Amino acid sequence: MENVAALPALESRIATLVAQYAGVPAGMTVPRTCAAVMDAVAGQGVVSSEGGKRLRALLALATFDAVRGGTGADGDDPGRSAVMDLACAIEVFQTAALVHDDIIDDSDLRRGKPSAHRALAAALSDAPQPDHAGRGLGIMLGDLLATASVAIAHDAASRLPKTQPIMRAFLNMHREVEIGQVLDLAVEEAPLDRPEALASSSLGVFRWKTASYTTIAPIELGLLAAGTNTTKARAIAESVGAPLGLAFQLADDLIDVIGSPSSTGKPVGGDIREGKRTVLLADALIAADGADRAELIRMFEAPVRDGDDVARAISLFGSTGAIDRSRGRIATLWHAADAAVGDAAGMLGLSDEGRALLAGACARFLPAHLRER
Amino acid sequence: MENVAALPALESRIATLVAQYAGVPAGMTVPRTCAAVMDAVAGQGVVSSEGGKRLRALLALATFDAVRGGTGADGDDPGRSAVMDLACAIEVFQTAALVHDDIIDDSDLRRGKPSAHRALAAALSDAPQPDHAGRGLGIMLGDLLATASVAIAHDAASRLPKTQPIMRAFLNMHREVEIGQVLDLAVEEAPLDRPEALASSSLGVFRWKTASYTTIAPIELGLLAAGTNTTKARAIAESVGAPLGLAFQLADDLIDVIGSPSSTGKPVGGDIREGKRTVLLADALIAADGADRAELIRMFEAPVRDGDDVARAISLFGSTGAIDRSRGRIATLWHAADAAVGDAAGMLGLSDEGRALLAGACARFLPAHLRER
Repeated sequence: MENVAALPALESRIATLVAQYAGVPAGMTVPRTCAAVMDAVAGQGVVSSEGGKRLRALLALATFDAVRGGTGADGDDPGRSAVMDLACAIEVFQTAALVHDDIIDDSDLRRGKPSAHRALAAALSDAPQPDHAGRGLGIMLGDLLATASVAIAHDAASRLPKTQPIMRAFLNMHREVEIGQVLDLAVEEAPLDRPEALASSSLGVFRWKTASYTTIAPIELGLLAAGTNTTKARAIAESVGAPLGLAFQLADDLIDVIGSPSSTGKPVGGDIREGKRTVLLADALIAADGADRAELIRMFEAPVRDGDDVARAISLFGSTGAIDRSRGRIATLWHAADAAVGDAAGMLGLSDEGRALLAGACARFLPAHLRER
Repeated sequence: MENVAALPALESRIATLVAQYAGVPAGMTVPRTCAAVMDAVAGQGVVSSEGGKRLRALLALATFDAVRGGTGADGDDPGRSAVMDLACAIEVFQTAALVHDDIIDDSDLRRGKPSAHRALAAALSDAPQPDHAGRGLGIMLGDLLATASVAIAHDAASRLPKTQPIMRAFLNMHREVEIGQVLDLAVEEAPLDRPEALASSSLGVFRWKTASYTTIAPIELGLLAAGTNTTKARAIAESVGAPLGLAFQLADDLIDVIGSPSSTGKPVGGDIREGKRTVLLADALIAADGADRAELIRMFEAPVRDGDDVARAISLFGSTGAIDRSRGRIATLWHAADAAVGDAAGMLGLSDEGRALLAGACARFLPAHLRER
């Protein structure tokens, strides 16, 4: 039922692929005086790729294995090494998106380490304008990783049936996430005086910016690699992946506020401190009385928020019922995703083992306490 | 000998493809409150795509037509509409690269219009931080256009023989340009006290940042689309495209200083004002006497340069012989490219007409007065 055994192999394969596809191509050289900067960028590509939870790759692999009827870890299916690379390509794309996202958001940290553009600025500390150079190199690193993700997917797809549908789905994933980032920026600019619109917009944006590449594309790509026809693969991926991806993003936002049982020591309330427009905030604004609502609006329209603001916002998210409402939204979406897995198992003729494998990979996107209603 | 007749068709096809591939996919909708921002980004994609000289697309088409033995403008070759789209994909990629380049360089203008991130900041002038939002949306627009270029190339390649080699060459072009941008940033951070190294690094970087997608990839893609085998296509593209692309970049930098006979009214000396590290500057530093060299270094290490500085630098570029040396470099490279076209014509068995078509498309990258030694 578990395929997390694939994790070490995934991690090492991602590092190999990034070094191979995002650096200087084999047999070519760059001018000697520029080599140190190029090495710093290529090296940062590998560093930025490390340490993800690999949920997306594991979901793609589980989907493929569920249909093919085995975990295939012993490499007996010749297509499986190609699917492994395809799964890695999704992770490399995520890294590309995060590198640009951190520049857009001016973020200092990612996965507990300096964000790519900050690390590159530090590497170029002797340059006349290290921050400017770091940001420029960060934009190019994101571009290099995005190109690498497509090239990895292309070479993997070439070794699989349905080569062209796989490439179309992969490029469609890129496009949906890019549109999602645009929509996310639009939401961040939205006024706070219409919280119902904010809640529905945010949920709508989650389909684009999160579900697209987190759950929908991994399922779709896993199915296509296993030979499922294009229309059926898309329909199943959407029916399972859309509610699961929304639940995942809601849970991510909720855990930022309530903390995680298996907390990594990440400070609670980071999104509030950044003034992020979340569904939690929208739900709190909707349910708050006049004074509380005015206080929240004032707080989130201010240029910065301090520790007292964060504590007060969390308290209001609780007292207005916004936290409970998010729990309810997550549980409902999870049950929809789980039911869709059941339907998909029927449509795909999965064995009990296959079904459990897919359901297990889906369940991993949410902590157990948020899956129960 | 001329295929500029294809220009209006190219221009209109690019607009159609960008609207189709870089906007919201048909049949999907975005949340209503975000639609205006998404429309602004997609619309800017079309605007940013307008007004290029299309030299790259014309070179790809001329290469294909030269091998296929006709201009094919009447559409009698079923592959030609696919090649047309492939040629457009190169132009869309260029736009993607320029959108990011303008963010990295903080440029206000592109092709006589506001740069994409500035135009998007203006479109979001009611937002709390329009410049920040404009830059973020500009990064995403560049990403969307880069993805669109690959998707356009993929759908075109699917209608051509050598589908996979075409995709590999297209993705390799992306990667080379991205590496070239990294190298270019490295050169901009280089000290000025070793001008020989600066000259050779700059020329080395031109291979990556300019020749890659300006001349090498268009020839390679045109040849692959016409059925030339992969190894031969790469060798010919490199032999013609590398010197031609270097000559093109040197001419671009030279015209910035000496002006163009058919000047568009662009102010002379823009690169000097920006403090750009060019081969001209390196050649001037190499040939200058101690006092002139110190003056140039002081000028280019200063944070800004005024009109007097620009005039003085141009005068020094002339008096040190740097302008003549660039003219010489360009003529030598052009003759190498022209000779390589002759060799390629033999290897490909081109007709006289085909050879003239290819040579004409190459000549278009340089004004006539720079092609003569």
